Amino acid sequence: MTLKMDANALMAFLRAEFGQVAQDFVVDRVALEGLCLRMPVAERHLRPGGTVSGPSMFALADVALYLAILSRLGPVALAVTTNCAIDFMRKPAAGVDLLAEARILKLGRSLAVGDVMLFSQGIPDPVARASLTYAIPPVRPATY
Amino acid sequence: MTLKMDANALMAFLRAEFGQVAQDFVVDRVALEGLCLRMPVAERHLRPGGTVSGPSMFALADVALYLAILSRLGPVALAVTTNCAIDFMRKPAAGVDLLAEARILKLGRSLAVGDVMLFSQGIPDPVARASLTYAIPPVRPATY
Amino acid sequence: MTLKMDANALMAFLRAEFGQVAQDFVVDRVALEGLCLRMPVAERHLRPGGTVSGPSMFALADVALYLAILSRLGPVALAVTTNCAIDFMRKPAAGVDLLAEARILKLGRSLAVGDVMLFSQGIPDPVARASLTYAIPPVRPATY
Amino acid sequence: MTLKMDANALMAFLRAEFGQVAQDFVVDRVALEGLCLRMPVAERHLRPGGTVSGPSMFALADVALYLAILSRLGPVALAVTTNCAIDFMRKPAAGVDLLAEARILKLGRSLAVGDVMLFSQGIPDPVARASLTYAIPPVRPATY
Repeated sequence: MTLKMDANALMAFLRAEFGQVAQDFVVDRVALEGLCLRMPVAERHLRPGGTVSGPSMFALADVALYLAILSRLGPVALAVTTNCAIDFMRKPAAGVDLLAEARILKLGRSLAVGDVMLFSQGIPDPVARASLTYAIPPVRPATY
Repeated sequence: MTLKMDANALMAFLRAEFGQVAQDFVVDRVALEGLCLRMPVAERHLRPGGTVSGPSMFALADVALYLAILSRLGPVALAVTTNCAIDFMRKPAAGVDLLAEARILKLGRSLAVGDVMLFSQGIPDPVARASLTYAIPPVRPATY
Repeated sequence: MTLKMDANALMAFLRAEFGQVAQDFVVDRVALEGLCLRMPVAERHLRPGGTVSGPSMFALADVALYLAILSRLGPVALAVTTNCAIDFMRKPAAGVDLLAEARILKLGRSLAVGDVMLFSQGIPDPVARASLTYAIPPVRPATY
Repeated sequence: MTLKMDANALMAFLRAEFGQVAQDFVVDRVALEGLCLRMPVAERHLRPGGTVSGPSMFALADVALYLAILSRLGPVALAVTTNCAIDFMRKPAAGVDLLAEARILKLGRSLAVGDVMLFSQGIPDPVARASLTYAIPPVRPATY
């Protein structure tokens, strides 16, 4: 199996289809084993005290795994998240980027499953862990 | 058991402690049985096609249950979400508010657990369902 | 919409297809709104101290929602559980049956989603809460 | 940090405290990085078709992470599972043991969080993935 989209193609897809969030994310690395997505933390992601908000962490995990799936399938703008279980374990460090390490555990005909570990850059203990399921539509659009 | 905070007190707390999101939410109703929180849907909550984004639904569920806990305990700004499992079941309807019906299932000394059903206003089938756990800090601040 | 299987048909299905667990469960009630499944607690379900084990609670929740889906679809022996999120909130009471109140939240073409509340008989506070997703196979067998 | 219990001590604990399930599990390996628990599959774990049942997979994941926590803390018979999210991804292979690879992601004062990957022996794709949270009681009993 080979990748159908590299980091540049994924970023182009994100800007074209999800323009309102594309600026929040940078694909640091993509491989068959998984994808690393960076969230350059900005004021709009923060809660009082300078910590990244839960919804921002959810968004990072969701986009990371979504892009990992796209990297394997090619652009499938209609894949939808059906389930997410997330554990918030530590307060993210203030003033550093948040990193998501996503890996695909199953890529079936109609469902994809994977998990994501979130880290504050430079700190080894994870801040959160998420597992997500996506429903993959039967028809898959052509290359992007 | 009686409520320690009513809808007005909860909104005042939200504006004081979480000013950056307070404008996203309105407490429609609060009782011992649970709380109904409304998200007047705005451009910033949307994905392409006019549907509410996953992170916005996550935020609505999280804030709804958080406020339900506050209504029972009084202001505990330091209660933190430790876990969320969310099922996205239907696409929210475009152009209508999103409503969260939250109920507390357990309010222990150190953990609180509850679930939330999300609806597009006026449509009976739920768009999403979430369960959340919160760690409650040992020291509880005084009245607000 | 009407029910395709009543309590007797569900119990017959369970005995025919899942003989090794059928003795663990009794359908107390089934309606479009949901299903109540009883687990007459026996020695094999217990942990030290006489409390029902986690796997037994998981099994009760899973079978309850599975049967609720069957009651709507008719016998679909191949529907499979793809996801479960469960919160264990209180220790079940010793010496009383465990009851599961299951309801279907979505019954789609390929996925079904629902949740289940577990109670010790006669005690109002729930001991556990679960949400589950099932993949429904494309071909549905004929009536049972 | 060093391990407080090795594989033999964990098995002795399991036999002493959870005699009714001890025969279901074998600690294959334990280290700070995690624990590998084996379930020698027997008739009582199976569903029709010879596949391992969902409750048996849940039990394997739960016991694996529980023992991983004990290996770090020493015997804490009262630690309780508060939450589990599990994804069932593939049918376990018939006739081979099931293996759980458990790792601890957070070991706090009052909560421990970890995840577990389940495999059919000799097959690289995981059959299931689980994340679990445990409440750790304030008082910790002495060494075993």
